[in-house]
Amino acid sequence: MNAQPQLINKVDRSPAEKLWKMAASDMASVDQLILERMQSPVGLIPDLAKHLISAGGKRLRPLLTVATSQMCGYKGDKHHKLAAAVEFIHSATLLHDDVVDDSTLRRGKKPANLVWGNSPSILVGDFLFARAFNLMVETNSLEALNILANASSVIAEGEVRQLAALGNMQMDEVSYMQVISAKTAALFAASTEVSAVITFQSEEKRKALHGYGLKIGLAFQLVDDALDYSGFESKLGKSVGDDFREGKMTLPVIRAIEFSKHENHSFWHRVIVERKQNNEDFKKAVLLIQSSKSIESTMELARQYSLEAKELLNVFDPSPWRTTLEELASYIVDRAS
Amino acid sequence: MNAQPQLINKVDRSPAEKLWKMAASDMASVDQLILERMQSPVGLIPDLAKHLISAGGKRLRPLLTVATSQMCGYKGDKHHKLAAAVEFIHSATLLHDDVVDDSTLRRGKKPANLVWGNSPSILVGDFLFARAFNLMVETNSLEALNILANASSVIAEGEVRQLAALGNMQMDEVSYMQVISAKTAALFAASTEVSAVITFQSEEKRKALHGYGLKIGLAFQLVDDALDYSGFESKLGKSVGDDFREGKMTLPVIRAIEFSKHENHSFWHRVIVERKQNNEDFKKAVLLIQSSKSIESTMELARQYSLEAKELLNVFDPSPWRTTLEELASYIVDRAS
Repeated sequence: MNAQPQLINKVDRSPAEKLWKMAASDMASVDQLILERMQSPVGLIPDLAKHLISAGGKRLRPLLTVATSQMCGYKGDKHHKLAAAVEFIHSATLLHDDVVDDSTLRRGKKPANLVWGNSPSILVGDFLFARAFNLMVETNSLEALNILANASSVIAEGEVRQLAALGNMQMDEVSYMQVISAKTAALFAASTEVSAVITFQSEEKRKALHGYGLKIGLAFQLVDDALDYSGFESKLGKSVGDDFREGKMTLPVIRAIEFSKHENHSFWHRVIVERKQNNEDFKKAVLLIQSSKSIESTMELARQYSLEAKELLNVFDPSPWRTTLEELASYIVDRAS
Repeated sequence: MNAQPQLINKVDRSPAEKLWKMAASDMASVDQLILERMQSPVGLIPDLAKHLISAGGKRLRPLLTVATSQMCGYKGDKHHKLAAAVEFIHSATLLHDDVVDDSTLRRGKKPANLVWGNSPSILVGDFLFARAFNLMVETNSLEALNILANASSVIAEGEVRQLAALGNMQMDEVSYMQVISAKTAALFAASTEVSAVITFQSEEKRKALHGYGLKIGLAFQLVDDALDYSGFESKLGKSVGDDFREGKMTLPVIRAIEFSKHENHSFWHRVIVERKQNNEDFKKAVLLIQSSKSIESTMELARQYSLEAKELLNVFDPSPWRTTLEELASYIVDRAS
């Protein structure tokens, strides 16, 4: 299955692994394309791109494109190009995010900007983003291209919205859902919707595929935000507590603040708004979050989205692909437990 | 002529002004599109985009798209969308460049990253870039889209190449030409070539339009690099001496170093390689550049490209558009004198 061992790093649990096995030859082609298209006579570009892309990413988004295309009975190779384009867009946003967020760990490694500096990360992100569009052009599908271009501008909007809300204790659940819909779920939704486009599905099925991607994207981000206060770095691939240190108002924090608004207001104000944090503050935040049970309620919400995602697949005929995509929806939540 | 005074800032010399007048109604539509498509419910995005886009840019690239489309007899509105897309791509690269270059002045104003910080500039650049592709999709021309996607990855390659060459005294004229072809001329070439695509020109004419854009792009950058050592900030819209302070190996420096390799090696090594500069060093560099006559020879090369650009237009029937595009090629060099 591991045609490109230097690139492919298979996921660690069974439903995703099962999907990986089913999609092995497709994913080998996708990885081949990714390797080819990150090349450039300017050596720093493939070096930096490879550092990120080979660093154990789960290729979840391109896997979704491949698997949903297969579920829709697609015959051809456009899904490989779209899947590679999706991974390039995702990689570009990660490179830029690491600069924006001052990350210290990405996929268990030093992020590219800490190895090569911020400027190369910004520019290589731009390069990968442009290359994504070249790949899309080759599919001859303006509709698929438009879906991914839309997702890209929505991602940037979500990132700016999140940035503007940093350290804002007033941020509520509605704004939080807007942020994660945009910065994370939009690309999941696009990565599954394009499969409906290249297989000429009905409007109903296209909406179902869009919704499936969107909801597992929401579940994915909710779990990620919960893990930031409860996970292990080895599982997360990034530093636990990063969101806290940046003053990000994620759901566990929003709910914990709401739960003990009066008693702990000055603590939250200091660490989130003033961003004055000492070494003990993260532990205290985790304790407050635990007593508010906001990890549990965040995970519960993720589980709900995952269930809704599964149900959306009912409009498709039963098939091994559909079954595994359903299992994948659960896996996205279960990976945390 | 100034339908959108808050956006349009007409150029200050006659051939470009003439072209502006001829293209006034087209350019008003382009500006309308630019204004519309930079909107977002996330207020920081239009605020930041407007800061840059309204700050007296000459809209040279979209003007080229509009004027070459008109020269080719285009009837329709795709050229407006392509022109707006070209300006968005250009704006995105400027926003990212200012972060990469640590610029202190852009179009005579504080660059966006010094007003709002680096992160919003990175993300709003991404947003504009994505929106550029949405605009291109609306033209239904995959070919035009591919040209601009290619140009975008080539620009990023050129920027990385330039970054990797910072402070490298070994950089030669061949590498310099590669850098400016990629980082600057590629977008000029794309902005004129797309006109050939939407007007279904012969391969010969398409090549001529590509070459015209490429050569005036080269001339434009050569002049810009000369002005960094000889211009006035009011004309340049950026700080004189920026290239020097960053250790950029531009043609005036490459030739000055070559001219007095032995006598001044330690000076150039200190200011370019070690980047140890004191207040008097820029003046000394200017003197060395003057004695090598490398400003003159850089301008001479620019003039040569401008002439070649003009000649390429001979394959088109004479018309007022062609004449003005020819004049524009000269203007690009003359603006410096």
